[in-house]
Amino acid sequence: MEPTSTPTLALAHFAALHAIARTPGTPTAAALAEARRAFLNSFGCLLGGADDPAVDLLWSALRPHAGAPAARLFGRSVRTDALTAALVNGYSSNILDFDDTHLATVIHPGPACLSAVLAIAEALPDGAPEATGPRLLDAFLVGMEVACRLGVAIGPGHYARGWHITGTCGALGAAAATGRLLGLDPVRMAHAFGIAATSASGLGEMMGGMSKSYTIARAGREGLNAALIAATGFTSSLRVLEAPRGFAAVFADGLDESALVGGLGERWEAALDTYKPYPCGIVLHPLIDACLQVAAASSATPAAIERVEVKVHPLVMVLTGRTDPKDGLESKLSFSHACAVALADREAGVDQFTDARATDPAIAALRTRIHPVVDDSLGTDQSAVALTLSDGRRFEARIEHATGSVENPMTDAALDAKFIALATRTIGAANARALCTMCRDIDGLDDPRPMFALAAGS
Amino acid sequence: MEPTSTPTLALAHFAALHAIARTPGTPTAAALAEARRAFLNSFGCLLGGADDPAVDLLWSALRPHAGAPAARLFGRSVRTDALTAALVNGYSSNILDFDDTHLATVIHPGPACLSAVLAIAEALPDGAPEATGPRLLDAFLVGMEVACRLGVAIGPGHYARGWHITGTCGALGAAAATGRLLGLDPVRMAHAFGIAATSASGLGEMMGGMSKSYTIARAGREGLNAALIAATGFTSSLRVLEAPRGFAAVFADGLDESALVGGLGERWEAALDTYKPYPCGIVLHPLIDACLQVAAASSATPAAIERVEVKVHPLVMVLTGRTDPKDGLESKLSFSHACAVALADREAGVDQFTDARATDPAIAALRTRIHPVVDDSLGTDQSAVALTLSDGRRFEARIEHATGSVENPMTDAALDAKFIALATRTIGAANARALCTMCRDIDGLDDPRPMFALAAGS
Repeated sequence: MEPTSTPTLALAHFAALHAIARTPGTPTAAALAEARRAFLNSFGCLLGGADDPAVDLLWSALRPHAGAPAARLFGRSVRTDALTAALVNGYSSNILDFDDTHLATVIHPGPACLSAVLAIAEALPDGAPEATGPRLLDAFLVGMEVACRLGVAIGPGHYARGWHITGTCGALGAAAATGRLLGLDPVRMAHAFGIAATSASGLGEMMGGMSKSYTIARAGREGLNAALIAATGFTSSLRVLEAPRGFAAVFADGLDESALVGGLGERWEAALDTYKPYPCGIVLHPLIDACLQVAAASSATPAAIERVEVKVHPLVMVLTGRTDPKDGLESKLSFSHACAVALADREAGVDQFTDARATDPAIAALRTRIHPVVDDSLGTDQSAVALTLSDGRRFEARIEHATGSVENPMTDAALDAKFIALATRTIGAANARALCTMCRDIDGLDDPRPMFALAAGS
Repeated sequence: MEPTSTPTLALAHFAALHAIARTPGTPTAAALAEARRAFLNSFGCLLGGADDPAVDLLWSALRPHAGAPAARLFGRSVRTDALTAALVNGYSSNILDFDDTHLATVIHPGPACLSAVLAIAEALPDGAPEATGPRLLDAFLVGMEVACRLGVAIGPGHYARGWHITGTCGALGAAAATGRLLGLDPVRMAHAFGIAATSASGLGEMMGGMSKSYTIARAGREGLNAALIAATGFTSSLRVLEAPRGFAAVFADGLDESALVGGLGERWEAALDTYKPYPCGIVLHPLIDACLQVAAASSATPAAIERVEVKVHPLVMVLTGRTDPKDGLESKLSFSHACAVALADREAGVDQFTDARATDPAIAALRTRIHPVVDDSLGTDQSAVALTLSDGRRFEARIEHATGSVENPMTDAALDAKFIALATRTIGAANARALCTMCRDIDGLDDPRPMFALAAGS
């Protein structure tokens, strides 16, 4: 069989062997630049979420069964086996709902790929290629690309059916990333895709609860698991993506082969990754931008706010229609909570989406004064807000492209600030700043061990 | 919320708390009797498959990352953590394709439930209920019941879409079995179902290869993993089965609630479990019965066989239509191989479906003289065979109900003999006989540790 004669083998060949050239001005260089930003963003989210109580629960369940210390739980000063580390670090990476988004598919490609890559890089078996900084970055980029291309190739029907696409496609992305780092040849890489595909899962029903991040964390663990198993010569299928009872047919309604493998290495889906300025559902971001604008312009106290009219894209009400969130997790999917905290606190950071803020009586009261109007003419990155105060004054704002959208991306400086704020929560400000610099210079990192040590807070 | 007000909670309540009475003559007593047979059958398959080369590969991949020795890999004299043991033992249980079948759903309920139950029973955390023999049996029965009911409730469209139903429904069955053994209350059990559901997977494309048994093994591991995580108070969803983006809607086309929870504890799907007399695709069994009959009647050598006409149910050609299997695994899904070895060897045991037998020139030649005719009027447990010898003699056989079907079940004596033959392969005849007796008397087993020791070959 030709090495690239089927979609599965073509993608496996790319993941295993495609040379990621550093030539400036090329699409690959642009993709690498975005991968560096995604790496930093995911790492920050991981460190910022590492002390979440849900991480404690997950780790307490797995610790008695975990293997010898080989990879760190970052931000926690603990080592465990690589598979458990991929799972727990992946969980931490998503729990704040602050991670990256490939907007065309709504995949969060970073958490599973980063957690799996870091875990196996630290615990690499004898005989595997050395995990230099550039190799880590290449593996991370390839993993994100596989996840995002697969998401595009199986079409919107997959997500619409109720799959959590980051869980499903993410498992294959993590297999690609870790398989590359382990030095799998294309055939073994294809088998790793098969093992990951028959392990892939993720239900939309988990959204808004503790198990949503678990669904994403699993993707990293299952991808790494698949790569490790395939590395032994264990086999699955060389056509798992396109077979009649394979991934695309069973999880979706078919495979767009040209979306999957057309222009591999020239056109990069991973280059379209975006980052959240606010740790909540991404469709809320234009609304928060607008609320922060009118809050600043009016300087109003919550008690002085009589009525807030918000115009939103229809998806806002579908995905984040909750008006009475019971806890911090639910508040991340509540349009009225997002508006209320942005207006009251004039911020929308991690501290605005906590259990305490979700149950605060003043915030709850303000939530009842937010009145949504669905407007089909708005894009998902647009919104309009009209604030009326009890003294009759009125303030308006309209957002054309939310902060963090493809048209209005977060700047490098804003991403650095986000990373440092998140990482400081668990490893302290000095480590956070040093790690930020190291991640920015990852191409020059011959030995990643100092990076792991910094991220453990030591 | 009422404890049984939704399908998910009703099933969780049953799994966690339903008292399994031993009253003779009741449906529950009949289900328990079948569970004892299924337990023995699955344990035998586990021990018979434990030395398969694919198990070596899987274990070599996982060993470097596995946890402290707490549960045995049966038939291998090795201990590992409970999650890895559930996976590797589950793999061994299915690799011979010799396990049980719930015919209405084509689920193999035994392997994942048994492997997960045995692994956590041996490694039970402090504070969990004691794992007596009756408790093991109850947990195993409840797990099988949950898997089979769920399979019935999501309908044949799930399998038809390409899902490997043992992998998907099996994860929830294993969660039920291990959750019961861990003493989960109904709410935590429901959360365990949720975690297992968002981890469930299994592609039909894996059939006929090394990863098919991996798909089944995963079900046990993911079910146990879900129960362990839910035991900490980690939450998912209390309506994962019926929610719009829950298990039935996403993996299938809806949920038949009465099939799922109607008559729980009175009507038992697990009581309809069946066992294979031959280690290959179950649709081949009536064909093998018929070939063994004509082989015995004719006493013909393979060279003397001129032509074999076989009438089969349409599914035989769909599922087992291979005529040129390359290895032992493929030979298990080849109607012509099954006929050829039954005619040539007058047996159809583990030794007839090996790489050596699949590539034997005399068997390959005989396979070309098997001529199938699809007959819509036949049931899946029926067949007809007409053997013509080169001297002109002709022998015919017709099977109304294959050995191992619901109407023609394997006898207890035949199951014992199957168990002893399989177990002897890895733990020796004396241990095999002692373990058979112990499994038969599991209700009287206060302490399961002697059972674990025997199954390790010590």
